Amino acid sequence: MRTSFHKERTPQYFHDAKDVRVRTRTRALSIDRAKREVRVRDLATGVEEDLPYDRLVIATGSVPNKPPIPGIDLPGVITVTDLHAAIAVKDKLSRGQVNRAVIVGAGPIGCEMAEALADLWGIETHVIEMADHVLPGALDHTLAEMVRVHLEEKSVHLHLGRRVTEIREKAENGLLEVMVSEESPIAAELVVPAAGVHPDSDLARRAGLLVAPSGAIVVNVRLQTSDPNIYAGGDCIEIPHLITGKPVYFPQGSLANRQGRVIGTNLAGGSARFDGTVGSFAIKIFDLSVASVGLTCQSALNNGFDAESVIVVQADRAHFYPTHDLIYLQLTVDRKTRRILGAQAVGANGDAVTGRINTIAASFPGKSTIEDISNLEIAYSPPFASALDIVNAAGNTAENILDGLSRPMKPEEFEKCFLVEESTDCLCLDVREPAAAAPFVKHFGRRWLNIPQETLKGRMGEVPRDKRLLLVCGSGARSYEALRRLDQAGIDNTVNVQGGVSVLEKSGILKTEKDEEGQS
Amino acid sequence: MRTSFHKERTPQYFHDAKDVRVRTRTRALSIDRAKREVRVRDLATGVEEDLPYDRLVIATGSVPNKPPIPGIDLPGVITVTDLHAAIAVKDKLSRGQVNRAVIVGAGPIGCEMAEALADLWGIETHVIEMADHVLPGALDHTLAEMVRVHLEEKSVHLHLGRRVTEIREKAENGLLEVMVSEESPIAAELVVPAAGVHPDSDLARRAGLLVAPSGAIVVNVRLQTSDPNIYAGGDCIEIPHLITGKPVYFPQGSLANRQGRVIGTNLAGGSARFDGTVGSFAIKIFDLSVASVGLTCQSALNNGFDAESVIVVQADRAHFYPTHDLIYLQLTVDRKTRRILGAQAVGANGDAVTGRINTIAASFPGKSTIEDISNLEIAYSPPFASALDIVNAAGNTAENILDGLSRPMKPEEFEKCFLVEESTDCLCLDVREPAAAAPFVKHFGRRWLNIPQETLKGRMGEVPRDKRLLLVCGSGARSYEALRRLDQAGIDNTVNVQGGVSVLEKSGILKTEKDEEGQS
Repeated sequence: MRTSFHKERTPQYFHDAKDVRVRTRTRALSIDRAKREVRVRDLATGVEEDLPYDRLVIATGSVPNKPPIPGIDLPGVITVTDLHAAIAVKDKLSRGQVNRAVIVGAGPIGCEMAEALADLWGIETHVIEMADHVLPGALDHTLAEMVRVHLEEKSVHLHLGRRVTEIREKAENGLLEVMVSEESPIAAELVVPAAGVHPDSDLARRAGLLVAPSGAIVVNVRLQTSDPNIYAGGDCIEIPHLITGKPVYFPQGSLANRQGRVIGTNLAGGSARFDGTVGSFAIKIFDLSVASVGLTCQSALNNGFDAESVIVVQADRAHFYPTHDLIYLQLTVDRKTRRILGAQAVGANGDAVTGRINTIAASFPGKSTIEDISNLEIAYSPPFASALDIVNAAGNTAENILDGLSRPMKPEEFEKCFLVEESTDCLCLDVREPAAAAPFVKHFGRRWLNIPQETLKGRMGEVPRDKRLLLVCGSGARSYEALRRLDQAGIDNTVNVQGGVSVLEKSGILKTEKDEEGQS
Repeated sequence: MRTSFHKERTPQYFHDAKDVRVRTRTRALSIDRAKREVRVRDLATGVEEDLPYDRLVIATGSVPNKPPIPGIDLPGVITVTDLHAAIAVKDKLSRGQVNRAVIVGAGPIGCEMAEALADLWGIETHVIEMADHVLPGALDHTLAEMVRVHLEEKSVHLHLGRRVTEIREKAENGLLEVMVSEESPIAAELVVPAAGVHPDSDLARRAGLLVAPSGAIVVNVRLQTSDPNIYAGGDCIEIPHLITGKPVYFPQGSLANRQGRVIGTNLAGGSARFDGTVGSFAIKIFDLSVASVGLTCQSALNNGFDAESVIVVQADRAHFYPTHDLIYLQLTVDRKTRRILGAQAVGANGDAVTGRINTIAASFPGKSTIEDISNLEIAYSPPFASALDIVNAAGNTAENILDGLSRPMKPEEFEKCFLVEESTDCLCLDVREPAAAAPFVKHFGRRWLNIPQETLKGRMGEVPRDKRLLLVCGSGARSYEALRRLDQAGIDNTVNVQGGVSVLEKSGILKTEKDEEGQS
């Protein structure tokens, strides 16, 4: 209820400072579009009245999705999407009534709740998610796995690819029993459904306004509904997705704020536009920051794009600067048009991570291509960026892949082929220096070969020609150079493992004792 | 000489790893374009030879400008633009031979040297700058003054609007005596000229290649010189400025890196482009980070634009997030086309500051307007941004100004009118809460009136109608609302002081005992 300058925003304040009459505890019952009146009821007195309007704004927001699970209405099952529910959860926690909690859904709200419960309150926290990775709307598999590894390091119990089938109350101790597909039931004092939200468009629908199949109110670029005297904005509308061109429901407080200004301008006789969203998203989960924009590779494929994903790893500032953190960045690119379709990033330094994603987001409305990203002018100074920033490196890597200069292997393909299937048709060729490769050679034996990239020219005779070679280095850069050299020597049954050992370790595919500093 | 993975890059490494023959201690003497040969001399043996080429790349870089000052060649005057000079300076410092140093120029190199000398070595450091503010190429006056205040807090002595007229050696003690216009001479053991660099294009000029009046080699978007078999890149070329459309000399390691890839692609038969620069710049000066892109307001005016500047102040993340720092952001906008011409920012959190400037930079190639900036999709989450980020707020503020809804007053105009001239025709009307305004009311007496914005409607009778009112709040947001309300009441002899007390204090115009937390 307070601004950034700690001013409380009461109805009295709005009246005094802005001539706005705020009516709290008042419900809008219906809209009479012919008479231009809204029927409202004072919830304290029960008195109803009709408020006339010239222009009307619908900002009814969203309501939480309620998964169709038997037992979802039991006491102890609390959905946290309003202040009152949050207070109810906090009361329960602060009275020491919760030892174990189950969160249903590993989207943004589920992940933020997991951090709050496990970190702030020290509660044994389980998260059940139907998809095979966390944050499925924002991240593809590899980066999502980095988040999973981090959540598990922070003692959050993840149950991926699982559903809650029922919630029961145990008569003997009053505990909730959460039935999970393919797993044993989990006994808990608190269950938090976090299955997203849907638009609250009931009032609009009953007034005969156009509402999309998603349930969201349909608006034009002026944010007018199908009745030009009625505007709508915020979590109750759908807006164009600027990458797919299709309408999308993307409820974000930031977009609601910007829509508010557009509506205000238009109400006052102006002609402001809200053209749509590129889908910018950010979240902090414990010590890891996550940001994304546009489409995931999976979502791009689902939308009919000929999509390719590109993963790069690089420090957030010059490598010789005393402190730096790695950023893991994935681009989604369109093979045909070479357009950037999306980007996602994970790293410890949130401002650096979001800074890169925002920069890519800003380039979208110009329909940026990988060449634009290669030359995107990130300001350079060692404390803030490398001379060739990770954003540029991602563009260059995408270019190499689309031009056929590189043959990338996704980290999960590496996992499947090298670790799960233990295919005898392929070998890892690690082109790092011997000290970095040694633990892997020791562990994998003859399946993990080490020839440092700078010695490769002189040791070409040692390179096996009867196997598929999975080229690996610290980040994927030197192994790309090795791939080029091997190609020149006619050895082209090779792939470059994207992001190298750094990504394999960060996403939990390879588990070693070494820390990141030891990599190369 | 080392990569981010600590690999040393010796000539041997380049030979082994990349088949590149690096010839150190070898000078390129001349180019015979007809024969396609470069004459080189081995500096160790004196032997000369002709190296044939199919394609040639000139990457001769830049040389430091040498100000035409008598005494500039004395021992103890050391220009730091190569490794050897840096080592010479460091030797002198580490032997304890320097108690006082004079830096000539307050551009990026001068400011970085000032930090190194004053902070790392504890030396009394003086900086002499001809312009009336530091970093004149990157910042307009107000934000530059914030840097000045910070440098002075860190004990750096700035002499702005001054020239070094001569450097003498004092016979009695061997000290250098630096003669400064309008000031007493400064005795120092070390003088560091930091007056920028110019392109090293001598080889190209003698080969008959087209060289611009600036001395930079002229290239096309493929980075070919006037001889299509000869490419050039890095600090020896000029490139198009994407805002003005004019060629510009903007030597930056980051651009050189990107040009290197473009040239490499084209040498190998590809057709990559380097379209130009938007002028992204960043620097860290002690605890302050500075970034800019595009044109300063002054430079935009010089280039014939009808430019206006807009200053906003806002936290780098949600105000309710436990830690946050203020960002001071200035936009340069074109009144006629509403295009963004430039942006500059200052703040303590460098990743947040550069993140915003990079985001604006990325929107330039699409020729972004203020409306684009108002809706620029900065990813929102409280740890990383406000729901309405400072970038959006800057766009909105620019819109208000260009649409005539606000009448901005520049902080330096406030200083001139209210503080220097102490004009009796104007009054400050401070619309913050009484506690925040009290020290100012106490100090300025009847010239500093306080009516909180939310009480203005009921206290309209107290507002003087015979004076020009300089409206002030913490950041310029509430004073804008006050301006609108006063306009409605017919009181329009008002201006809104841009950035409010926050900017006035940060730039040293108003000096108070209060810290930023006390402001509103």
